[in-house]
Amino acid sequence: MDAKKLSGIFTPNMVPLDDRGEIDETELRRLVDWLIEQGISGLYPNGSTGEFLRFSFEERKRIVRIVLEQTAGRVPVLAGAAEANLRMTLQACEYYHSLGAAAVAIVAPFYYKLSSEAVYAYFAEIARNTPVNVTLYNIPQFANDIPNAVLKRLCGYERIVGIKDSSRDFPRFMNMMHGIRPLRPDFVFLTGCEETLLPTLLMGADGGTIATSGVVPEVVMRLYNHFRRGELDAAREIQFKLLSLIEVLVFGADFPEGVRQALILRGFRMGAGRQPLSPLQQLDLDAVRKVLRCLLSDYGFTEPPAGGCDPLAARFRSADLERIVREVLQQLNERQ
Amino acid sequence: MDAKKLSGIFTPNMVPLDDRGEIDETELRRLVDWLIEQGISGLYPNGSTGEFLRFSFEERKRIVRIVLEQTAGRVPVLAGAAEANLRMTLQACEYYHSLGAAAVAIVAPFYYKLSSEAVYAYFAEIARNTPVNVTLYNIPQFANDIPNAVLKRLCGYERIVGIKDSSRDFPRFMNMMHGIRPLRPDFVFLTGCEETLLPTLLMGADGGTIATSGVVPEVVMRLYNHFRRGELDAAREIQFKLLSLIEVLVFGADFPEGVRQALILRGFRMGAGRQPLSPLQQLDLDAVRKVLRCLLSDYGFTEPPAGGCDPLAARFRSADLERIVREVLQQLNERQ
Amino acid sequence: MDAKKLSGIFTPNMVPLDDRGEIDETELRRLVDWLIEQGISGLYPNGSTGEFLRFSFEERKRIVRIVLEQTAGRVPVLAGAAEANLRMTLQACEYYHSLGAAAVAIVAPFYYKLSSEAVYAYFAEIARNTPVNVTLYNIPQFANDIPNAVLKRLCGYERIVGIKDSSRDFPRFMNMMHGIRPLRPDFVFLTGCEETLLPTLLMGADGGTIATSGVVPEVVMRLYNHFRRGELDAAREIQFKLLSLIEVLVFGADFPEGVRQALILRGFRMGAGRQPLSPLQQLDLDAVRKVLRCLLSDYGFTEPPAGGCDPLAARFRSADLERIVREVLQQLNERQ
Amino acid sequence: MDAKKLSGIFTPNMVPLDDRGEIDETELRRLVDWLIEQGISGLYPNGSTGEFLRFSFEERKRIVRIVLEQTAGRVPVLAGAAEANLRMTLQACEYYHSLGAAAVAIVAPFYYKLSSEAVYAYFAEIARNTPVNVTLYNIPQFANDIPNAVLKRLCGYERIVGIKDSSRDFPRFMNMMHGIRPLRPDFVFLTGCEETLLPTLLMGADGGTIATSGVVPEVVMRLYNHFRRGELDAAREIQFKLLSLIEVLVFGADFPEGVRQALILRGFRMGAGRQPLSPLQQLDLDAVRKVLRCLLSDYGFTEPPAGGCDPLAARFRSADLERIVREVLQQLNERQ
Repeated sequence: MDAKKLSGIFTPNMVPLDDRGEIDETELRRLVDWLIEQGISGLYPNGSTGEFLRFSFEERKRIVRIVLEQTAGRVPVLAGAAEANLRMTLQACEYYHSLGAAAVAIVAPFYYKLSSEAVYAYFAEIARNTPVNVTLYNIPQFANDIPNAVLKRLCGYERIVGIKDSSRDFPRFMNMMHGIRPLRPDFVFLTGCEETLLPTLLMGADGGTIATSGVVPEVVMRLYNHFRRGELDAAREIQFKLLSLIEVLVFGADFPEGVRQALILRGFRMGAGRQPLSPLQQLDLDAVRKVLRCLLSDYGFTEPPAGGCDPLAARFRSADLERIVREVLQQLNERQ
Repeated sequence: MDAKKLSGIFTPNMVPLDDRGEIDETELRRLVDWLIEQGISGLYPNGSTGEFLRFSFEERKRIVRIVLEQTAGRVPVLAGAAEANLRMTLQACEYYHSLGAAAVAIVAPFYYKLSSEAVYAYFAEIARNTPVNVTLYNIPQFANDIPNAVLKRLCGYERIVGIKDSSRDFPRFMNMMHGIRPLRPDFVFLTGCEETLLPTLLMGADGGTIATSGVVPEVVMRLYNHFRRGELDAAREIQFKLLSLIEVLVFGADFPEGVRQALILRGFRMGAGRQPLSPLQQLDLDAVRKVLRCLLSDYGFTEPPAGGCDPLAARFRSADLERIVREVLQQLNERQ
Repeated sequence: MDAKKLSGIFTPNMVPLDDRGEIDETELRRLVDWLIEQGISGLYPNGSTGEFLRFSFEERKRIVRIVLEQTAGRVPVLAGAAEANLRMTLQACEYYHSLGAAAVAIVAPFYYKLSSEAVYAYFAEIARNTPVNVTLYNIPQFANDIPNAVLKRLCGYERIVGIKDSSRDFPRFMNMMHGIRPLRPDFVFLTGCEETLLPTLLMGADGGTIATSGVVPEVVMRLYNHFRRGELDAAREIQFKLLSLIEVLVFGADFPEGVRQALILRGFRMGAGRQPLSPLQQLDLDAVRKVLRCLLSDYGFTEPPAGGCDPLAARFRSADLERIVREVLQQLNERQ
Repeated sequence: MDAKKLSGIFTPNMVPLDDRGEIDETELRRLVDWLIEQGISGLYPNGSTGEFLRFSFEERKRIVRIVLEQTAGRVPVLAGAAEANLRMTLQACEYYHSLGAAAVAIVAPFYYKLSSEAVYAYFAEIARNTPVNVTLYNIPQFANDIPNAVLKRLCGYERIVGIKDSSRDFPRFMNMMHGIRPLRPDFVFLTGCEETLLPTLLMGADGGTIATSGVVPEVVMRLYNHFRRGELDAAREIQFKLLSLIEVLVFGADFPEGVRQALILRGFRMGAGRQPLSPLQQLDLDAVRKVLRCLLSDYGFTEPPAGGCDPLAARFRSADLERIVREVLQQLNERQ
């Protein structure tokens, strides 16, 4: 298995659920097909976007199995193999290897705050025991950090073939590539930061795992293909325009609700998420859906919402709520 | 079930492992008996100290079953029921209820960063569906925060009977008691901050879940009993002396390795932890063990280490390593 | 000069300004007299509450001179001597010494993030050169942290006689007293955390610099005197009731606007602050004033506001704005 | 004055000090000449690199006067005008305007943590009163943050012509350009993040204030000129090679000691900094100097150090101290 197959845009796909909250296998297979047909470079089940922690271990294994079956070798599959502890993570590695995953992606231990020595020891133990190539998954917002100094030590293990960095810290990403490449020219660098996909590619990264590519794969692949052909102006224009969509998808609601809503707008039966929503969250989500519909209609992927997409639509979004209420209160005060 | 049973000192017990890393049931039962005989107020399996995440769901259920069986009603058991998602958490609640747990403790969702609305929705959904009383477990260092404003809304649910706060934020704890008591006079406030157990009790908390009570239950219960008899000077002296032990137990190594080592020194077969240790971590742990032996011998619980406990022993602890090496380097520089 | 004079409640007094934003010397002298008459233990000009950074160096010197003159030895004065760099800080030390300050309080360097070695070097240099006793002022929210390990090294300097800790970190405060007292039994520990004044005193601190004592000196001194007489229940009741006032004073608006508004309600001509306020901030301040009037009227210090103090008054406070606007929006949505 | 003159590489120059710690005017003028001769686009006195806070207000004014005199119109000067409060900041604006500064750069208020409304109000008040164009200076590590939403409101003021962002947050920088450009096509975007200068330029920024350009102006200008000619491969190679130097300059010692040492190696009499150094910091600085000499000799700017630049030189750097001491300790342990 050539590690360099891990390049381009991997889609961290979500998992459609049925009315009872169970995995909707049919719809998941349809989603896999659609993404591949749109040209994405690879699939990445059980990522953060894929809500891996909201499934049971058995379900996570089933998700990878379905995705690999349906992919049928058309694109490489990077299987999220993070479990809450070492034993189960190694079991996942073995199983995903047996299924034919190109590699697995493993997040550092979460919940407990660990020393960087402990993070090193964890991945070193995995590297010594896994039958499948491992991509480290760095997301210090959610899990223990994998500092560059630890990565330098870990890249001495052949089984560790790359890193997917979602730290959103670009100076760090630059130093990471600069420090590791002399030691491991084959090491794969993928970014998980959607807003900086293009500059990261321009500086030499191999690709990215990009949630937005699960929603508008046509657009993200157009950006990527412009980049590959050296058409920087065209790529840059797409990247900047994407920023508005990224903001709503990633930060418009509790992640990854925005992605789920966008997929529904693109025609998939995603169902309701397993994380319960309060009435106020549901109200927020209505607003997010309206904005998403506007943004997607601008690409021609949906009809605009009934009320149109005038700037006032934006006033229903959370960030502006405070201002509105203050105006209301001021009027109330003045009337008193 | 009277919520007020949840008062006093609950021990978040660790789980002894055998040579293969499996639960050592015999030793776990011996540990439970010993703790109860020392007078602790209750047991708290599957807490952070109990390394809940390093076991599988099946193992966590087995741990609670063993502890409840062995306790046999002698003290109340607060069962950690936190799973990575809502479905499994509710399954745990049901099972621990069927076994006779006094209540369960549930940490907020971890890994994903959630809005406080989402934290509210999560616990509200649990409160509406759990057959057993719930103690919220707030530990923002490891999981999503449960802000006081959210707690205020949640205490409208009868099933939510208390909170175990490990935020180490005492002003917040004060505001929490001040804000909730008028709404729910029966609400139980437990602290998880070992260093401030006494002042928290003095300000009106009901008790604490104290890892140190799993290592020196005699001492922590002496503090608690002095407090209850209004003997503040005696209680204060114990609290201050405990600070040295707490520092090593909680911060001397990657948590909870220090607790494990101390239990070994107190005569339990704890085995090696499931989280792998690097060679440097093992070297550190040697130093931690020496310091622990000194501290425990000062209480009369162990023999002092072979080399004695002069202040120089402390120089082997991590915090001083940097200074030593600088001195070595300076000497090397001067010799050049 | 006996360092132990630094005990009890020091008031970090604000500075009244006239219509042109200049120091209102007459009103400042009246404020000093009033505070001393209410029984506060000492004064603390040029603290964070005293907005030291919003004055020029010359003005800061004038403020200390006025306060010391007006105090005329009735209570000790702890003079804030923090300047943005070492040279000016030492100049301030010399001047405040010549004026008769009991000691100075110096915050760690701010703006630049420094290593703890640099924080040590800064205070060590001050300690070797100051003619006046120094109280370190730890406020890691605003300036570089003074870690306990650094404090341990610094307490080798005789000129450093105490610490005023506003970190709001009580476990740290406990460890600090535990670590320093064997080395320096005379060392003075003052807390700047208003919510935990009583428990900090109960655990052995010497006193506090308490902004609330500048607004309701009668109440804070009643708490302190109950504490000194061992009347814990009475002291505790005052502390808890104070929490509502502290929340508004410290967190109700950009600090220390809440304190300024409360002083106006208590009858002082404070003028407008030098930090400009946006229209929305001014609207917020109206709300803060209403709540303050309610809280102060409950102590009998003001008349209640015209509209009374029913729970609805609270709905005008920032924290609730979002909820109100959501309700408004929901109604709007339903009407559409 | 055309705001667009603020493009390219501005050097935040340091200030040479003489033996008594006073400004060395002769050497400062020599430094200004040298930087201009090397082709830098502009000068930026009183930046963070220029240690503005470690001088008095009078000294800061003198520094800008000297730099403007010596520059004599050869390049534009962006004068750091940040003072600790509004009054003094406006005085600085007026004075630097009278001297002929192209614009001033103003950091948000520091020390106090302010709401974003207060940050808005502060800059709005400046914008309404300054006679000179203002570049906002965002450095949330040291001062209050200027969120993109606040920037959007502030760019309604004509006097605010640009932003110099040192947040090191590239996704934010992208969103900033995307959000502001439609409102203010003339707005100037400068980055203060040295490691990402090239990708920031590639995405459309106007330039940067780059401390490294004060040390190796030839190299940074070569990077910039390659970029302008569209020679990306050449520019990228320089950027990556610079990372090693940036790491030592910015993070090798308490900032900006590394920059000072490098300037000494380049032949300037910089003197000792005003912030005192502990013995250990001085030892560290020896190590930093050795590494800097190696890095600069690699560009041909210095002779390599006496002992050569083998990899072992690196072992004297702080990051490796811990490892060395552990090895020493292990040997000691084994010998016992």
